[in-house]
Formats: sequence, structure tokens, C-alpha cells
Amino acid sequence: MNTYQTYEPSQMRELIREKKITGPTAGFAEGFAQANLMIVKKELAFDFLLFCQRNPAACPLLDVLDPGDPVPRRSAPQADIRTDFPKYRIYRKGILEEEVTDITAYWEDDMVAFLIGCSFTFEHALMLNDIPVRHIEDGHNVPMYQTNIACEIAGVFHGPMVVSMRPIPAQQVTRSVQVTSRFPSVHGGPIHIGDPAVIGISDVNQPDFGEPSVIKEGEVPVFWACGVTPQAIVMHTKPDIAITHAPGHMFITDRRDQKLGVL
Amino acid sequence: MNTYQTYEPSQMRELIREKKITGPTAGFAEGFAQANLMIVKKELAFDFLLFCQRNPAACPLLDVLDPGDPVPRRSAPQADIRTDFPKYRIYRKGILEEEVTDITAYWEDDMVAFLIGCSFTFEHALMLNDIPVRHIEDGHNVPMYQTNIACEIAGVFHGPMVVSMRPIPAQQVTRSVQVTSRFPSVHGGPIHIGDPAVIGISDVNQPDFGEPSVIKEGEVPVFWACGVTPQAIVMHTKPDIAITHAPGHMFITDRRDQKLGVL
Repeated sequence: MNTYQTYEPSQMRELIREKKITGPTAGFAEGFAQANLMIVKKELAFDFLLFCQRNPAACPLLDVLDPGDPVPRRSAPQADIRTDFPKYRIYRKGILEEEVTDITAYWEDDMVAFLIGCSFTFEHALMLNDIPVRHIEDGHNVPMYQTNIACEIAGVFHGPMVVSMRPIPAQQVTRSVQVTSRFPSVHGGPIHIGDPAVIGISDVNQPDFGEPSVIKEGEVPVFWACGVTPQAIVMHTKPDIAITHAPGHMFITDRRDQKLGVL
Repeated sequence: MNTYQTYEPSQMRELIREKKITGPTAGFAEGFAQANLMIVKKELAFDFLLFCQRNPAACPLLDVLDPGDPVPRRSAPQADIRTDFPKYRIYRKGILEEEVTDITAYWEDDMVAFLIGCSFTFEHALMLNDIPVRHIEDGHNVPMYQTNIACEIAGVFHGPMVVSMRPIPAQQVTRSVQVTSRFPSVHGGPIHIGDPAVIGISDVNQPDFGEPSVIKEGEVPVFWACGVTPQAIVMHTKPDIAITHAPGHMFITDRRDQKLGVL
């Protein structure tokens, strides 16, 4: 595992705010929910909130901040979303313009921040069920893919779903569905099990985001909807500005994974 | 049970549209999800959508219609929300001004309609588990109460949670929690079990909406968050206009209850 596994969320956020950590956060502060980020201007906030409501598997909302407010008052009231992600992406008109480690200089009073559930949350539950999580075992970022699954349109926002993939031993696939279905607010059960081509992935060894995971003999690729979907949506919708996290570089909330389970 | 138990949703909506039915809909078209209604003007739609996101137990969203669109394209594409509820309430500045059976004359192009999950949906699941549902047995509207539980504020919207109550035999209370927790999009597990005074209900025989249910010897009052909450919110927030359904007089969607179960 890793040094930061047993850290508290506030300790992790401090290291991230001081930019002592600028890399992926999988396995950090185990047992606490991590979050994806999407920031849009207020004039697009209704459309994006509606997009999340209509696409709950890809964009389950953990917290939506008040317009102009950078403090996630319900999920981590001591934090600041402008500094507490390890890395951000600035998109202008759908083009990834730069990656930065702090967005204070980009923040405007009419911006609205959306914190979206992350599959890292249910990985702890998988591991407690003796289901291996390859990218944590191998210490790399989770592989993510743009699919041929169209998201439900909402206002201006449209585009394809992004998924993350974990290779699961065939005899544990059913259990992986059961374990993750308990957590609808962090993507819930898998979107697809098996042949990557069915959802438009031509080469599972060439992810669109993150790094590839080795699929061993007897393992099945299992795909979950991913909170990087908003980035694919931004590329298709081309708003003047949108700010996201860098894939795998998440925000660590104060919410315990277990409290997100519906049963 | 009742004559309409085995009707299809489209058959029920036709009878309601023709105003052959103008009463409560509990137990109709069994197995299909029913919905509460809240309509606000576009300028308040972001705030109300945020309110629902922050109060998912009281306001789980089944469908949010596009601004100006009266057709629930994802939950009942042949329906029209202006005619397909048995009864509506028109609130102006927080005051209930009138009850009508058709809102076509009140509809404006900048209105946004929210369809909110209804506990009637999980009542079928309770009955399939041999857990009695008193107000269906006795053929009256479910009792609903304003509580002392404050909803999470969102923009202009604030106020208390409304709950519905069902008397459950003591030995079946645990099972009622399990059964309803599978359905977070129709309020999920109970908000409170037992003493009504704990959540600010002084007389359980005097509901604020609907009609009282008899609590028999050996039964425990169990309370679920209720989709009438927006009406209490409207009374507190006092928007210029808001249109809701009349409590218990619901919209019958094409969605099967079973497909709303998360596991």
C-alpha cells in the first residue's frame, strides 16, 4: 500500500495545499470519499446541475458549492477547492489549455464548483472483500476510456461517458457488482462487464486518461462510469471556460465511505 | 385493494386527464413509480435543483423537465404534467391560493417542472414483504406532518422537512428499513422510528396533510421523508408563484418501481 493510507483527510489536504503532493491520490486517507471537480460559470450552472441529475452514474454529486463560494461546507468545511486538489486543468472553449496546481488566480465570483463522487471510494470496499484493485497494487493511475455511450443531454451539455476499468478475477465479478452497487453516490454498480469493444473501446491497453492496467489470465475487464466524464463533455460542449481536476488527482473529503452506502 | 391496481400507467393518466379521477392515487397502477410535483420559474430553477441535491431524502428527483417543456420525456414521454395530475395547488407568495385539476392556463414558457419520487413506490415493496400499509388497507390518504427537522438551505429555498407516517408492527420495523433503503430515489430508509415528539410532531392523530392512520397495539410509527416537503418550503420561502400537486394526488410515471432499486 502507501505511506498516506492512514492519514486523516485534513492532513492530506494540507500536504496537497502546500504542494508537497501533486500526483494521483488513489489509496490516500483510506476510508474517506474522494471527489472529482467541475467548475463552470453561474450562467451554465443550471444546465450542468441538470446534466448531473440526468447522468447520475457518471456524475453523482457529493457536494455543490454556492455560487462564488470555494469552501465545500457540507463535505469538508475547512477546505478550499481552489488549492486542495493536487492538480487542475483549465479548459477554454473545450481545449485543454494548461495544468496548474492552484486555481486561486483563475477563480471568479460567479463560478460554481461541483464535487462529483469518485470510484476510489468503493475500491476500499472491494479490497475489504478480497477483490484485488490492480492500479493500487501496481502503484499507478487508474485507466480511463472515452466510450460510445452518449450521456443524456441537459441544456448545452452533451457528449460521451468516460469509464474507469478494473480487471476482476472471473469468480469475483458478481461480488464486485454487489459491493459497488451499495454506493450509488460514487458511481454505483458497473456500466459494463467484459468485451471493451461493446462500449467502443478499441484497445484496452491504450486508455484515454490515466495509465493501463495489466489484465491477467482469468480476469475480466469491468467498467464503471467515471467522474472524468465532465472533461469529455467540456471537450464536446466547448464552454468559454471550465476548470476540472487532472484525472486521478482528487479532492479528499471528510465524508466516510461507509456513510455513503445506501444499505 | 382497488379497481385501478392493475391498470397501466397510460390508462390511469388518461382517466386522470379526462378528470374521471380527481382523488388520491395510492395503490393505482401497482408496480409503477408515482411522482410529486414542484414547478418554479426559470430564475429560481437553479436554486430549487440545488435544494433537491442537498435534500435527497425529501426531494429525490425522478425527472427534471427542460425549461418550458411540459412533457416528462425521460419518465413518461406520452404524458403532459399540466393535465396528468388529479389535482394541483397554486401558491402565490407562499399562500395556497387555489386547487385546480388542470394547470394549462397557468403554464408559462419559463417554468421548470420537477418530478420528485414518492413513497407510494416502496409501499408495493413493503406489501410484497407482508408488511401492512395502513392507509391503503383503510382506503384513505397517507398522513403527512411538518417536522422540526430543518432542510439544508439552497439559495432562497429553506424550511422544514415534511414526513409521511406508516404504523409498522414492532417485529417488522427492521425489515421495513431494509426494504425501503433499496430505493433511495423514492426517499429511501426511514428518517425516524418511534416517538413522534422527537421530530416535533405533537399529535400524530392530527396530520398537517392527508388523513390520520390508526396505530394499533404493538405497532410503531415509522416516518419517511416526503415529497410534500417542497410545499412547506414554498410557504416559508414565498416565491411569487409555485405550482405543486395536491398531497396524495400524484403523477403516475412509466418507470417500474423495481428498476429504481439500487440492489
